[in-house]
Amino acid sequence: MRSVSVIGIGETRIGRFPDRSLRDLIQEAGEKAIADAGIGKEDVKALFMSNFNSQFLCGQGHIGPLASEILGLGSIPAIRVEGACASGSLAFRQALIAVASGMYDVVLVGGVEKMTHQSTEIVTAGIASASDFELEASLGATFPAIFAMIANRYFHEYGNVRNEMAMCAVQNHENALLNPDAQLHKRITIDLVKNAMSIASPLTIYDCSLVSDGAAFVVLAATDLAKSFSRKRIVEVVGCGQAGDTLTIASKRSLTTFDATVNAASQAYVMAGITPSQIDLAEVHDCFTITQIINTEDLGFFAKGKGAFALAEGKTAANGQIPINVSGGLKAKGHPIGATGLSQIYEVVTQLRGEGGMRQLKQADIGLTHNIGGTAATCVVSIFRGR
Amino acid sequence: MRSVSVIGIGETRIGRFPDRSLRDLIQEAGEKAIADAGIGKEDVKALFMSNFNSQFLCGQGHIGPLASEILGLGSIPAIRVEGACASGSLAFRQALIAVASGMYDVVLVGGVEKMTHQSTEIVTAGIASASDFELEASLGATFPAIFAMIANRYFHEYGNVRNEMAMCAVQNHENALLNPDAQLHKRITIDLVKNAMSIASPLTIYDCSLVSDGAAFVVLAATDLAKSFSRKRIVEVVGCGQAGDTLTIASKRSLTTFDATVNAASQAYVMAGITPSQIDLAEVHDCFTITQIINTEDLGFFAKGKGAFALAEGKTAANGQIPINVSGGLKAKGHPIGATGLSQIYEVVTQLRGEGGMRQLKQADIGLTHNIGGTAATCVVSIFRGR
Repeated sequence: MRSVSVIGIGETRIGRFPDRSLRDLIQEAGEKAIADAGIGKEDVKALFMSNFNSQFLCGQGHIGPLASEILGLGSIPAIRVEGACASGSLAFRQALIAVASGMYDVVLVGGVEKMTHQSTEIVTAGIASASDFELEASLGATFPAIFAMIANRYFHEYGNVRNEMAMCAVQNHENALLNPDAQLHKRITIDLVKNAMSIASPLTIYDCSLVSDGAAFVVLAATDLAKSFSRKRIVEVVGCGQAGDTLTIASKRSLTTFDATVNAASQAYVMAGITPSQIDLAEVHDCFTITQIINTEDLGFFAKGKGAFALAEGKTAANGQIPINVSGGLKAKGHPIGATGLSQIYEVVTQLRGEGGMRQLKQADIGLTHNIGGTAATCVVSIFRGR
Repeated sequence: MRSVSVIGIGETRIGRFPDRSLRDLIQEAGEKAIADAGIGKEDVKALFMSNFNSQFLCGQGHIGPLASEILGLGSIPAIRVEGACASGSLAFRQALIAVASGMYDVVLVGGVEKMTHQSTEIVTAGIASASDFELEASLGATFPAIFAMIANRYFHEYGNVRNEMAMCAVQNHENALLNPDAQLHKRITIDLVKNAMSIASPLTIYDCSLVSDGAAFVVLAATDLAKSFSRKRIVEVVGCGQAGDTLTIASKRSLTTFDATVNAASQAYVMAGITPSQIDLAEVHDCFTITQIINTEDLGFFAKGKGAFALAEGKTAANGQIPINVSGGLKAKGHPIGATGLSQIYEVVTQLRGEGGMRQLKQADIGLTHNIGGTAATCVVSIFRGR
């Protein structure tokens, strides 16, 4: 298997765009990524699309040839990959394998989701299809309810970290202030988070990620060809791991350790030959504040039970020991589900290239993305290194 | 890239099963394939699931970990691939690449669909998501309407073959009589087809494939390891091609030649180093009778404009020059969309092994599967050879 690098990235702004269609979002982000890579459309040999639930929310499946036609890519192979909120990273991983195997030299990976035109009830039902319908969703166990259980269990095992959990939202909102693509540009406080509308105790609306429209694309190329296309810093994919876990929460070994994250991270670290302490920045799945805290522990950044305190001490802030979600994360940048994993990669590549503008980190040579689907039933962890 | 073989197959009966859940269908077909392969569950290193539209029809997405949990496969990587009616073949192709690249030695590919519990209106809307929603489905251009246009254009270019088209349905129903897994066991006549309820002229209800529930699974292994697992005839994947085309019918170069089929077939023939005349049997996508006729031309079995006459002359019958859809096809075996591409492979492998029972062909060493999605916007052609 040969080395693969990211040579192009593009994303739309993330937000509520009642006037923008799936078509429009795909076109903007896809064209941006192709232009950013310095390639021609004829160089793209396959298209890997990610979308979570446009069949239910927009009446649109078969996103592969839809995107291929919109972007003028001709008759190349095009597929859609779906794995709930990890869809974007799964499409990225399929593309990575295809290039690493030598099958294609240059491929495009794209993710898109359009959600905000639907009612909260429809969106909630759509998202619930990422859980087990028969055993969870049909009984009313929506994701806020499930992650509220997880938060309560975390409190039981490691102490009540309600304040620290709220700080996670505060920090991600702070980071999003410097990201022009972010959905929310709003400074918040711990008190605001704690006193906001309760969704499922202890989670308030500010503990939850956003319902969003948006698209993000990435161009991958064999590393030995990357320099012939791109004049920018080449960002090599040095590690990638994927693991699964039971879809149902009832079958899980633990509610406060996500085994899929631990396994996927272990694969990625071994492949990259590095340890968590060498990571300069990470985009970590924060569908809820408690999720980010648990994930930062499972990724090896902090000991079990210490993630919330580390966050509150500023260790995950942009100027901290391991900056987490400098983009604003799913919490404040937004969560256009099919695009989310690719938008995480967009941020890491932007930082490794030194193109982060107002939010650029001083030290950014190795970055990590972490993306889960459902109740961590699917997890992909990828590690990137600037060359 | 190394050689890959099919070492296990399993499918459910295809039909209307109001009492069977997605869970139940997955379990039956998945367990059968694993047992047929002679492997243990611990041998399966990745799972590639195919499903078209259970998010809309059943409220269930994230089919990868759902199936993994049902089948007891632990924490292996599991994804879902979707490309409309070609979803099964796309999942198969992703699995093929993963094994061929050396990434995994043994993987499981599965497809499932549950459709018959929904009303005709809901099913029609669900299927229409395989077309361009904004430009086609939302304007009422459902697939029967689109393929009726195609049939009319075919009549215009090559003459009125209404009788020969009806014969396609008659032949596939005849074949299904010998397939215990088929949804319909009903002998029909040309007159019955022509005088049945009109769906979109010239297509009557007997020109249309079925709405079905069902699941089909396949186990793939590196060929050099296949004999260590399976005592059955090893079926090598000697060719596989994938091509796309525009999603919208308005943008296509031709209505009577499916460029995606021509391109995908060309790739598969070149990879296999064989010509169409060497194929002993083919499972060909017959969502409508006209589709099978056009496809048999585009696959190189017959000259353009001659497919309908060749069929009527018996050349595609079980005892003909190139037996097509000896399983009964989508038309009479059934069309559980996410499972269809894998059920085609099930039939070819069954025949190449000599396990076809009453419908076993005398000569079956090289078989082909052909699967399209939407208006032939996605196509996968695979070629199999018994070793």
